[in-house]
Amino acid sequence: MSKNVAQEPAKRRGRRPGGTDTRTALIGAAREVFAELGYNDATVRAIAARAGVDAAMVNHWFGGKDGLFAEAVLKLPFKPADLVAGLLDGPVEALGERMVRTFLTTWDASGGGVFIALMRSVTSHEQAARMLREYFLENIFRRLADAVGQDEHMEFRASLVATQIVGLGMVRYVARFPPLATTDIETAVTAMAPTLQRYLTGPIT
Amino acid sequence: MSKNVAQEPAKRRGRRPGGTDTRTALIGAAREVFAELGYNDATVRAIAARAGVDAAMVNHWFGGKDGLFAEAVLKLPFKPADLVAGLLDGPVEALGERMVRTFLTTWDASGGGVFIALMRSVTSHEQAARMLREYFLENIFRRLADAVGQDEHMEFRASLVATQIVGLGMVRYVARFPPLATTDIETAVTAMAPTLQRYLTGPIT
Repeated sequence: MSKNVAQEPAKRRGRRPGGTDTRTALIGAAREVFAELGYNDATVRAIAARAGVDAAMVNHWFGGKDGLFAEAVLKLPFKPADLVAGLLDGPVEALGERMVRTFLTTWDASGGGVFIALMRSVTSHEQAARMLREYFLENIFRRLADAVGQDEHMEFRASLVATQIVGLGMVRYVARFPPLATTDIETAVTAMAPTLQRYLTGPIT
Repeated sequence: MSKNVAQEPAKRRGRRPGGTDTRTALIGAAREVFAELGYNDATVRAIAARAGVDAAMVNHWFGGKDGLFAEAVLKLPFKPADLVAGLLDGPVEALGERMVRTFLTTWDASGGGVFIALMRSVTSHEQAARMLREYFLENIFRRLADAVGQDEHMEFRASLVATQIVGLGMVRYVARFPPLATTDIETAVTAMAPTLQRYLTGPIT
């Protein structure tokens, strides 16, 4: 196995200049295989084979399929700390606006593929849904709530924000309802920012 | 064919004995034909022919193509015409409120299972996504828009409404974010109705 590891970088050389290591190869392979098969049917073996590395490397680098999924699928395409910092960089009164713009810009960059893969896993596997829930609540919504909120409804506010963000992605990338499927980002920002702003700081009860 | 039709009612009495009656045959045929052709291109005639029954049986048992699709493919626990009629029964200013209440009441009745199954097929099959899009736009959102709207943004409004309705279902039943996953319906109505009302009749541009 250690022999295998030592050999791997040479095999993949030339493909991704910044990603010539085993870990990066596994993340790329995981994104592909999870997108193709969903969480349930994607196996560690299949992902490792796609990456051209030994399956034991999945445990070594990610602690297993769950960890690889969280890193490769859930955590992409942004670091939560950076995302939250970006969202909080500006007046709280315009946080709703920044949220719509940030999510659409991030997801549009992958043609919606990252979002679609995420939803496919979440709808087909309870464990993926749990991971999504834990991950987003812990790393994004709760941090935002802590930064913004002073009332006792911040958990409820966070889940309301989630409805609008997830629903936006579902309609734009998965169901592709016209015209929202193709509308420019600022049109969507104008229409939806007031909703997020109210969920974050306005009257909800 | 008329012989077949004439015999059917007696056969079906009670429950559905299996795959031997007209109604069951139509559901099976509908699943095939909708999957092959999509919602728009699948005709009542083609489905009835596949089932080996008279086309009038579609109206008789399902009220038309939309009802058959709702039952056979979407497995919706409501007839779209009834849903729309119920939503429109009351002042337009309270339509957002009725929408949240109606969808949650309907979906809660199945423990969210119907919604989860729908999202699972939509996220995993492009064909299902296309059918859902065509079906909901045609039978629910556009009918509501026609009844409500007078401005030139009704398609955009309909897609905005869809974001909030789909997102609500995703968070409550699929991701199960607390506390929205378990909150009582009226709490959700109070929080979310203003969003839907604005998308339907308020300023969005």
